[in-house]
Amino acid sequence: MAELPGLSRRRLLGGGAVAAGAVGIGWGASGLVRREPHGDDGLDVVAFHGAHQAGIETTPPGHAAFVGFDLAPGVDRADIIGLLRIWTDDAARLTRGLPALADTEPELAARPARLTVTVGFGPDLFTVAGLPERRPPWLRPLPAFPIDRLDPAYTGADLLLQVCAEEATTVAHAVRVLSKHVRSLVTVRWVQRGFRDEPKGQTMRNLMGQVDGTVNIAARSVDFDRLVWDDGTAMPWLAGGTSLVLRRIAIDLDTWDELDTDGRELTVGRRVSTGAPLTGVDEFDEPDLTAVDRFGIPVIPPSSHVARARHTHDGERFLRRAYNYDDAPGPGQLSNSGLLFAAYQRDVDVQFLPVQQRLAEVDALNEWTTPIGSAVFAIPPGVAEPGGYLGQRLFES
Amino acid sequence: MAELPGLSRRRLLGGGAVAAGAVGIGWGASGLVRREPHGDDGLDVVAFHGAHQAGIETTPPGHAAFVGFDLAPGVDRADIIGLLRIWTDDAARLTRGLPALADTEPELAARPARLTVTVGFGPDLFTVAGLPERRPPWLRPLPAFPIDRLDPAYTGADLLLQVCAEEATTVAHAVRVLSKHVRSLVTVRWVQRGFRDEPKGQTMRNLMGQVDGTVNIAARSVDFDRLVWDDGTAMPWLAGGTSLVLRRIAIDLDTWDELDTDGRELTVGRRVSTGAPLTGVDEFDEPDLTAVDRFGIPVIPPSSHVARARHTHDGERFLRRAYNYDDAPGPGQLSNSGLLFAAYQRDVDVQFLPVQQRLAEVDALNEWTTPIGSAVFAIPPGVAEPGGYLGQRLFES
Repeated sequence: MAELPGLSRRRLLGGGAVAAGAVGIGWGASGLVRREPHGDDGLDVVAFHGAHQAGIETTPPGHAAFVGFDLAPGVDRADIIGLLRIWTDDAARLTRGLPALADTEPELAARPARLTVTVGFGPDLFTVAGLPERRPPWLRPLPAFPIDRLDPAYTGADLLLQVCAEEATTVAHAVRVLSKHVRSLVTVRWVQRGFRDEPKGQTMRNLMGQVDGTVNIAARSVDFDRLVWDDGTAMPWLAGGTSLVLRRIAIDLDTWDELDTDGRELTVGRRVSTGAPLTGVDEFDEPDLTAVDRFGIPVIPPSSHVARARHTHDGERFLRRAYNYDDAPGPGQLSNSGLLFAAYQRDVDVQFLPVQQRLAEVDALNEWTTPIGSAVFAIPPGVAEPGGYLGQRLFES
Repeated sequence: MAELPGLSRRRLLGGGAVAAGAVGIGWGASGLVRREPHGDDGLDVVAFHGAHQAGIETTPPGHAAFVGFDLAPGVDRADIIGLLRIWTDDAARLTRGLPALADTEPELAARPARLTVTVGFGPDLFTVAGLPERRPPWLRPLPAFPIDRLDPAYTGADLLLQVCAEEATTVAHAVRVLSKHVRSLVTVRWVQRGFRDEPKGQTMRNLMGQVDGTVNIAARSVDFDRLVWDDGTAMPWLAGGTSLVLRRIAIDLDTWDELDTDGRELTVGRRVSTGAPLTGVDEFDEPDLTAVDRFGIPVIPPSSHVARARHTHDGERFLRRAYNYDDAPGPGQLSNSGLLFAAYQRDVDVQFLPVQQRLAEVDALNEWTTPIGSAVFAIPPGVAEPGGYLGQRLFES
């Protein structure tokens, strides 16, 4: 610790050497890293405090971990509040590039790399907290769909941590810190890691090669406020929050790869090359589901993914913020790939479910995709000011 | 494919839309992507052809996958040559940002992101190829060390693919293409994915928070030629090649986190904050293993990692190019983290083994680290010109 007084600006900004040590010395709320100009993206900071939690309207960075926790037996409302206070404090520090209190690897906190930490509540948390009447009606497991092959290892959870950053080391450190600081109160049910890479301003591609997420809700738009952020009408505590449906969708790349480009485009209803609907030329052209060719056959097949997934009215829209996953294959397998499909909406039942039900009934893509995990969470609003904690209005209003 | 003639420069450089389609139309050897100026790192190219394989002297990018394959029963020398011709052709294209031949997701090839593909040969490949006399004497499993808890799921293999890039999607696509194109000849034994993040010019940190890889061999140095690249004296076919020892080292972060900073620094022999030896002030200062404090106690404990790992003479040095791993924890666990320790040297027995043996005997760090996977490969030289294939001199000289 002899080095602390000598902490140089170069070392702070270089991000390599933060000698806060095992006691987690706080540096106050000076936001040092944020104030200095720099050319190192690893030092970029996304604000933690605000009306909404970060990590939803935030432009998705390259890496994500979704962690589902179960509350330990005997945990009560006060424990949950304690846990949320710890997570709030840890997240506020880590997202600024500061070590968490008692951070045992403070050096790994020095590169926030646009870190966001987003917390969600599963259905049973409300029972444990003694607040069943405050559980939003849409907060329950999705109905069973015939296409599902759900693995309990990726399904349900009492609490969610969504950790996103541009650097995988930052994600690993934040997940570790946040998990271990509450280990007496929870067990880890699942950790699902993903990635996405996209040129600035373009839409990501999934591991099937498709442009993924074209129909979406623009950040900082009237639609975002209307369709994603809750206004508190039904549940006042949730104003400024939202919901997350997380579906782990396995892709059978072996059979997908047997399909030629025409087959893929008729399956999806879009060009593989550009993401444009088969009736258009640009990715963001509106699909014309009524268009037919000279034989009277629909240009976009009615069973295609685009035709089935398309919202039938404006109220069926939701925010998509998916990540690819590519885990180690099992014995005899070549790949273990898929999509962590993350959908955010004010009301799961009204916005997400009708679309999911249509896709479960008929979607040409279902031949190659299988939902193997599913979880639904209420995402409380953000912490507006230092001093508050995530979910405070649920417990105190 | 109607779009091919209209391929615009914007779309090529944007990387989002390469309409080569399922037939994998070749664009010749024009190296389009490389010639155009651009500001998108995702389009950066590392040359595939050269005296040495890329991915060793190359500055390590953020993501790596190491894939171990076993040759299928009945595979012979001609099959291996065929496989290496396929990998050579695929790698030459993918590393330039071009789809592989018959690439079913050509769009995912459009962002090479400094992709390198490095191929290695395990011990048994030489037997299968009918060339046992050409197997380097050091190419065999490492001796069993008492610290090892090797899992067959991460140990040994007949063939290695090391795939590195700045973007995880690029790694996923390249691994998929290279694996499936030879699937009739091999089975996947293991896939190990890792990441590293470091500010430009600084040394990476592992998930224990330590600076990792300080003692290393500089790229494009006389030492690199002398200590890493084989000169063909013992095995003429290997001139320009090297060896890889890949060790999967699990880290027990739960017990590591119980250790305070002083304890960590005495364990490793370096400052956590800067990576400087306990006898120095800068990361790259030479450790003084003879220095004692006023009580006569060594400043760097003789059992510390630095003291034990230090080369006793210049011929024990090797190149380190490690990646962190952070996989999903098993039931009841909080973390599943560690290091993919990758060491490259001309001679495993002379350079690597003495150091490993010292560490296996005594290393304070062993209390928290456990080797759970181990594999050794001969890395053939590079393909100097288009037309050749990886390992050609092994089979044809």
